[in-house]
Amino acid sequence: MAVKKRVAVVGTGAIGGLYGAKLASAGARVSFLGRSDVDVLRRDGLDVRSIDGDIRLESVVAERDPAAIGAVDIVLVTIKATGNDALGSLLPPLVAPGTIVVLMQNGFGVEQRVAELVPDATIIGGLCFVCSTRTAPGHIDHVDYGLVTLGEYTPDGTPAGVTDAVQTVAATFEAAGIDVRVREDLIAARWQKLVWNMPYNGLSVVLEAGTDELMADPSSRSLVAAMMDEVVSAAEAHGHPVGEGFAAKMLANTEKMKPYATSMKLDFEAGRPLEIDAMYDAPLAVAASLGVRAPCLATLADQLRFLDARNRIRSDRH
Amino acid sequence: MAVKKRVAVVGTGAIGGLYGAKLASAGARVSFLGRSDVDVLRRDGLDVRSIDGDIRLESVVAERDPAAIGAVDIVLVTIKATGNDALGSLLPPLVAPGTIVVLMQNGFGVEQRVAELVPDATIIGGLCFVCSTRTAPGHIDHVDYGLVTLGEYTPDGTPAGVTDAVQTVAATFEAAGIDVRVREDLIAARWQKLVWNMPYNGLSVVLEAGTDELMADPSSRSLVAAMMDEVVSAAEAHGHPVGEGFAAKMLANTEKMKPYATSMKLDFEAGRPLEIDAMYDAPLAVAASLGVRAPCLATLADQLRFLDARNRIRSDRH
Repeated sequence: MAVKKRVAVVGTGAIGGLYGAKLASAGARVSFLGRSDVDVLRRDGLDVRSIDGDIRLESVVAERDPAAIGAVDIVLVTIKATGNDALGSLLPPLVAPGTIVVLMQNGFGVEQRVAELVPDATIIGGLCFVCSTRTAPGHIDHVDYGLVTLGEYTPDGTPAGVTDAVQTVAATFEAAGIDVRVREDLIAARWQKLVWNMPYNGLSVVLEAGTDELMADPSSRSLVAAMMDEVVSAAEAHGHPVGEGFAAKMLANTEKMKPYATSMKLDFEAGRPLEIDAMYDAPLAVAASLGVRAPCLATLADQLRFLDARNRIRSDRH
Repeated sequence: MAVKKRVAVVGTGAIGGLYGAKLASAGARVSFLGRSDVDVLRRDGLDVRSIDGDIRLESVVAERDPAAIGAVDIVLVTIKATGNDALGSLLPPLVAPGTIVVLMQNGFGVEQRVAELVPDATIIGGLCFVCSTRTAPGHIDHVDYGLVTLGEYTPDGTPAGVTDAVQTVAATFEAAGIDVRVREDLIAARWQKLVWNMPYNGLSVVLEAGTDELMADPSSRSLVAAMMDEVVSAAEAHGHPVGEGFAAKMLANTEKMKPYATSMKLDFEAGRPLEIDAMYDAPLAVAASLGVRAPCLATLADQLRFLDARNRIRSDRH
């Protein structure tokens, strides 16, 4: 990197810890914005076990107050979309004209809400395809994959093309050894991710199953395929088609994947709230507004809301 | 009863034990056809704890071989529909011209298969609305309800009306204190039962929930209602409408019911095979043949097949 970028990482979990550590070890000036993990990060640093090579950061800048970080070049938002209500207070101190905010989150509609919070920022969606877990405060375990797909948000949804901001982030990530793909149409990239996420995340929770089990049984496999078709139809009607044969490719890829516990399954088992709004309600609302029926996914979303509500009551009891 | 009816009860479980004991205590000549419970019934008799009054049969005729029973006036088929493959060998020895076979089973299409096995018999559907459990061999616990709805099967599905055979069975049941309702259109009665059974049985398994939980949560409640609408549409298209406002009445009734574990949930928890064929596949095939879409129920059926397959593998391991 010609100039060392100032990077603020919102969140100290599996995504923020991994990519923040990679950027820091490549020389970026990284500050972490966190809550409960801040004291541990300051005292003990950050340890990332990674298939790309382990990273140990002895000295970590970690803050609870975004004003203590101030405006930066790039903000990585790596918290779960379920926590996005907090961004209204967390983001503005990190943003000045020219700041790029990268939303490394699942789901749909997340960029629009953030664009309204920080109108001075350039908003980029960052779609992570990675198996990474926060095993303890300051300890990240990155076991597979790592690709980040980048595309710039536009208020009217038209493809932004490969903008300067996207190129800046891509170059910063690549300099840190992060695998990057650049997309001209962020919304199409979001729909593509949903082709995988909507069937597998929800069914893995409702059926308490890994991706391998869902693919091995003919009933669940055909249900996954039916749900993928619903996402594909919605994307098509939305004017952001995922491309010919994309769903079939996802099915085939998943069959070859190692058994994989989805992020929603991990959230559910940990008693954390599920990303139903961003991953189901927002895209299903778009589908409905376009007259596209997605009854299998709507059924799944209803089931998830039931399980999530019960799960949180049970978690509160502990 | 003018003449004591000879009754063969196929099955010694919650349904067969309860109604067989009621008929026997009212003077019918009842023989039970069973498997593992036969020795216990012969040795210790049959005990029914019932809200209608307890019944103790000291001496029980119980056989494993239907030829030892021979032809009777009325056969009650009370095994689960998942065991119906055995009826090809069990039923013919019990049937002579004039024998009435009452299928006290859940689901759809069960009468047609049995009519082909015993063409000499008159086939009646008997739909049980009852909370009864076999707690141990020879021990039945009847905790709520008890109504049996009767209607005669016709090969072409036209309503049979209230036939002599239906009146005979109804009179025999009523003489034994069994609450009976007679229906001219058996298929409409089957569809009505499915309006309740298809949503609640499947969702109670997939979401591990009682009817009270399913009604209390707005997401699961609206999903139940959507699934009921699919059944109502199928019945309508099939020419056997369930009647105006029927689904709304079922929802309201269920809200007032005591918390209720469905039969499919009890089967699942006991590791028994689920009645997916009779309760989902058969009615969904009728709906599909009529061009009626039932995607919420089809989703549920796929999920149940997945869970059933895994449940049986796990049960086999014990």
